[in-house]
Order: sequence, then C-alpha cells, then structure tokens
Amino acid sequence: MTTIDDLPIRDDLRGKSPYGAPQLDVPVQLNTNENSYPVPDDVVEAIGKAVQAELRDLNRYPDRDAIALRNELAGYLGHGLTTANVWAANGSNEVQQQLLQAFGGPGRSALGFGPSYSMHPLLAQGTGTRWIGALRDPDFGLRPEAAVAEIEKHDPDLVFVCSPNNPTGTALDPAVIDAILNRARGMVIVDEAYTEFSRPGTASALTLLPHHPRLVVSRTMSKAFGFAGGRLGYLAADPAVVDAVQLVRLPYHLSAISQAAARAAVVHRASLLATVEAIKEQRDRIVQVLRERGVRVADSDANFVLFAVSKDQKADWQAFLDRGVLIRDVGLAGWLRVTAGTEDETTAFLNAAEEILSGERSEPSGRSAANAAHSPDERSEEGL
Amino acid sequence: MTTIDDLPIRDDLRGKSPYGAPQLDVPVQLNTNENSYPVPDDVVEAIGKAVQAELRDLNRYPDRDAIALRNELAGYLGHGLTTANVWAANGSNEVQQQLLQAFGGPGRSALGFGPSYSMHPLLAQGTGTRWIGALRDPDFGLRPEAAVAEIEKHDPDLVFVCSPNNPTGTALDPAVIDAILNRARGMVIVDEAYTEFSRPGTASALTLLPHHPRLVVSRTMSKAFGFAGGRLGYLAADPAVVDAVQLVRLPYHLSAISQAAARAAVVHRASLLATVEAIKEQRDRIVQVLRERGVRVADSDANFVLFAVSKDQKADWQAFLDRGVLIRDVGLAGWLRVTAGTEDETTAFLNAAEEILSGERSEPSGRSAANAAHSPDERSEEGL
Repeated sequence: MTTIDDLPIRDDLRGKSPYGAPQLDVPVQLNTNENSYPVPDDVVEAIGKAVQAELRDLNRYPDRDAIALRNELAGYLGHGLTTANVWAANGSNEVQQQLLQAFGGPGRSALGFGPSYSMHPLLAQGTGTRWIGALRDPDFGLRPEAAVAEIEKHDPDLVFVCSPNNPTGTALDPAVIDAILNRARGMVIVDEAYTEFSRPGTASALTLLPHHPRLVVSRTMSKAFGFAGGRLGYLAADPAVVDAVQLVRLPYHLSAISQAAARAAVVHRASLLATVEAIKEQRDRIVQVLRERGVRVADSDANFVLFAVSKDQKADWQAFLDRGVLIRDVGLAGWLRVTAGTEDETTAFLNAAEEILSGERSEPSGRSAANAAHSPDERSEEGL
Repeated sequence: MTTIDDLPIRDDLRGKSPYGAPQLDVPVQLNTNENSYPVPDDVVEAIGKAVQAELRDLNRYPDRDAIALRNELAGYLGHGLTTANVWAANGSNEVQQQLLQAFGGPGRSALGFGPSYSMHPLLAQGTGTRWIGALRDPDFGLRPEAAVAEIEKHDPDLVFVCSPNNPTGTALDPAVIDAILNRARGMVIVDEAYTEFSRPGTASALTLLPHHPRLVVSRTMSKAFGFAGGRLGYLAADPAVVDAVQLVRLPYHLSAISQAAARAAVVHRASLLATVEAIKEQRDRIVQVLRERGVRVADSDANFVLFAVSKDQKADWQAFLDRGVLIRDVGLAGWLRVTAGTEDETTAFLNAAEEILSGERSEPSGRSAANAAHSPDERSEEGL
C-alpha cells in the first residue's frame, strides 16, 4: 500500500497526519464554538427560496465578484462601508489565505500573538509565508508597547490579531490595533470572528478603517449568524485591498448557491442574530458561576470561556468527556475552553465542572464516549 | 485614494489589474465552455430537496471530509474506485491549488505543455511554485518522446497535462501519460475537465490509476454535469494522495449546502448528462461545417472547437461580437475558440462565421455589444 511518505510531498508536511480528530458522538458538544441554536424556520424558508431560484441556472458560472452578497454584507457592517469595501469567500479561512497569497508568500513573513487562532500559522505555512510566533502577556492581554516591540523586532509583512481573541476570549481595545498600525510596515489583519458576542462598550476595529488602508477586518457568518455549515467569511477594508485579493482569488470561488444562501441569511439577520443575547447570557453565567467557585476565568467577549483547570488539562478534558460533555483542549497547559451553548448544555457543563474541578472525580458514566481516544487536534476543529 | 500600488502587495503581483473582463450582455454566449442547457426540472427538484434538508442545521459545521459526496462521485467514476480514492473541493481550481500546496510550493516547480488551461500557471504562482512553460507540438499534439524530453530537461515536481486539452480540444492517448509517469519523479496531474465529451474510443487516464500512485485525475461538474454555478471539482487518485491534500485543505472547505447539492446532482446524473450527446452533435457539426468551408479546425473531444481565423484574431473576435456572438480569444495568434451550445446558438455562430471567415465583413449590427471593449482575459473567464 502506498502511504503519504511514498509520495513526493513537501518536506515540511512529511510525517504529519491529516488533521482531524474524529468528531465524537457525545450528548453535549461544546468544543468548536458553534452556535447551538438551529436556523429558525423563517430563515430556513427564506434561504430555501433563495437557493431554489438559482438552481435552474446552475449550468452558468456564478457572479465572479459576488456583488449582491457583498452589498448586503456592507449594509450589515454599517460604518459607511460599501460593496467596494467588502470581499467574501468560503469561510474566513479562505479570506485570510487570499490575504496571505496577496501580501505574504515566499520570502515574506507574518506575525501573530499566541495563544491565538491556531489556523493563522497553518494558513501561513500553506502559502509559503514564514510564521513568527510572538506571545501575548502572561494574562493573555496585549499591551500596545509589547505589541509594538515585537513588530519593531521582526518587521513582518503581515500582522494577525484576534479580537475577541480565540481561545482566550477577550477583545482588544482598538487603541492597541491603532498602535500596531502606526508602527507596522505591512498589512494588519484583525480577526473579529466572534465580535458580535462582545460585552457592551467594546468597539470594533471597523472604526479604524477610515484612517488605515493597511487594516483588514476579517469576519465570519459561522458564529453569531449560526451559519457554520454555509461557509461564508468576509472582510472589510480599503477598496484597494479588495482589488488586491482579486488578483489571487480563484475565479468563481464562491458558488451561486453559497452567494444566494448567505445573502438571504444576511437579509434575515434580525431573526438569526436573536440568539446572540441568549448565548451571551449563558457565557456570562459560565464566567460568574466558575468565578464564584474560585476558578480562574479569562474575561470573555466571545461565545466561549477559557477557564483554569489542573496542570494536567488533558485528564480534565477526558473527565468532561466521560460525563458526556465535549469541550476543547486548546493545548494550553492548565486551561480548557468551553463553548456557551443553550441553557441546558451550559447546565450540563457546569454540573460536570462542579464534580471535576472540586477534585471529586466520579467514575466514568459508561457512555461510549468514555472510551474515545484523547486526540483533540487544534488545527482541525474550527473553520471560520 | 489608495490604490493597489500603495499597498505592500507581493512584487510579482504589482502593476497587474484584477482579473476579469466584464461579462458582456450578448445574445449568444459561447465563450466560457459552459453547458448551454439549464438544469432539468427533475434535478432542480432533487437538489432543492437535498439542500432544504440541510438548512435547519447550518449552525453546525459540515462534514469536514465530505464522505457521502465522495462516495457518490466514486460510484460515478467506476473503475473500482472508492471513497478513499476521491477528494472534492469548490471547483477543480481549488483541487489543483491543494495539490500544488501539498506537492509544490516554494522551492519546487510545476511543468505544463502550452497552449493549455491558463489557470495552471496562475495556480502555481499563487502557491509560490515555479512554473515551467513547455510547449506542445506545432499541431497541438503531444508526442511521448517530446514530453519525456521536457521532463528530463526540467525535472519538475509536478506535471500538468490537459486531456482533452483546453483550448485546443483534443484528448491524449493514455500511452502519452503513461510515458510521462514512467519518466517523471513528481506528481502527474491529468486535468480531464471535458472528458465526458470525448469521441468514442477515447480512454480516460483513470485506466492508469491502479499502476501509478503519483497520478492524479482531476475532474469537474462544471461542464458535462452543467453544474458550473455549483462549483464542484474533484480528483481520483491513490488514497495516499487524498491523505496528502487533507494536510493542506482548509478545514470545512466545502459547505454543507455544496455537498448536498452536488450529491443530488450526481445521483441524478442520468438526467443531467443527457445533454452531453446533444452538445457533442453540435460540436461535431461545427467541426464538419467549418472544415467543409476550408477552415482549419483542431480535433475536438470537448464541448468547444478551436478554429483558424486570420492572423489578427482579435479583429475576428470583435467581428463575432459585433454579430452578437461572444466567443473566446485564447491569446493564440490566428485561432479562436467557440463553445458548442444549443442548435440555435451553433447556427448563430456558424452564420456569423460564414460572413466573417469568407472575408466579407458586414458592418456591426448596432447591438450594444458592438461598442464593448475588447478585453478578453484568459485568466478569468473559466473556473473549473
């Protein structure tokens, strides 16, 4: 049998296994920051109609520039943005890959501040861009002077910043991003995948766009819109940035069906985004209850919470799984991450947490998941 | 106003304009090798139902590995292939980009034989892979000894071969591909986007798969399936190749809707592929009529025909456009390419050709298209 190692694969991929822990069949799935609420009936109906209207003409290529969809997204973003400021692709992973192809690539570098979204270094690798892994402060914050010092030291072609940060949860003050933009020579990508869940008073980096043509704000419909299965990411930036990604995007990258479905979802956003407040309530509940129990918790502006466990977070991750609650080991010693789901899912998590974090480990419940291998793979379980 | 040149874009992109001639509003569009037949009602209904069934759960990420779709595609391909032999993405452009990311990239090279599909060198550029532009024989054929000589000379990491070749139309004898495989060190990608239109007796490179783990056969649903708007490309290869592309693919690259829609289309392929014979008839009619008129025409196994015009093919392209017939200037001096459409579209093309190629140019008909700029862009108008 032929194996990968028998093929002339790139040396930097050699010996790796395909990403992707098996998705475990567990009652409470709070590991990939999905929106726990299904698409409401009125939106299902609207998307269905919008898609149906495209089907007869699928023999023709789609609008290469996705104008109608970009126009709706610009309307959603506000801040005076128009179609020319917006670009869309199959998930914000593809948007960011296109940015790396246009502004990174061989001989160029990208810098990020870890712990952060684990796809950023992988997207860099996939485009031949050298990755520079700088660090956040020990409390997961990012002070302007620390960020600027790293940029002065490394002079990267691109800077990636997550706000709210994944997996830690906290949003950045736009002043930090402004400081980075004023010092960096290259493009600055602010990944705002979770921004709709921010606590009151948190400003988006969109406010900085009028003054910074090298700023790109990356967004996704996977989280607040509950549209992870529809795969739609987008960016807002100066129109010249949109021109630049059009130099590298695959022609007709976004299907007619994807464009129509996403457009209908954005038009019906009032109904879709109605779940955001309910999710924020459960997020705040997790933070509050865990803190009341003396657990260290990072401030969260996202639909997930990072909380401290024992030094052996792998064992604790397994203990949650043994209780039917699948959460996320993000590879950060002493910490685990949980998605804020429905009220019932949150209750199941908090009950399990009470057993586990109080140190009184009960025996596995005998569910089949109890025997699942511990193989969370950071690189595979989310796709913004 | 900020322009692309004000941004820190890659040097090799500097000064270029975004790809994409405007799609012209012309009565007869025979320029992008689309299938002229709309999706039949029974397939529209089937796809609609399949998509509808996914909509409520779009809050969840799709099957990362698209197993059900790959299983259907394997069944369609036959040749004893199974799910493990097949991979799918948003168009065969994305499939080929993934192959270049896994087997090409910085420090590596890919070789193709021009004139051929103009996206191959662009996909190489977009992944930092050095492109080596070898040439076909003057009659657009490719003799095994000529192909092997180029491979010995350049020792590429990947070889791209189109069969049937675009834009010339002729399929290759699998013996040529076998010779390439036996000499090449790297991966060999056979782009069979148009294979369903081949003349009787033309074998697919699928027949070579059992003996060649470095062979990849690339396919698309954009042409014979009439599913260009659905964006679904796929490959067949040794399972190790499928493992390799999974190292570089974006997680959740293929939406739940795309997977469901494409799967329904493959299940209902009898109805979709019923147009293939009608298209081949028009293709053969174009070849025959033009040859009867003394026009040089390349043999075609595709849904398009390459035919000789005057030395100034740009002027002839415009003359067709002036008559409401949009065809393709593929940048090949003295040649133009036309898609085989419906009987009426083909008649319109042949009538225009009679006027133009007999040298009796009539005046433009006064249609708005008559004033359209001549700006065919090779890199933009097709996305397999």
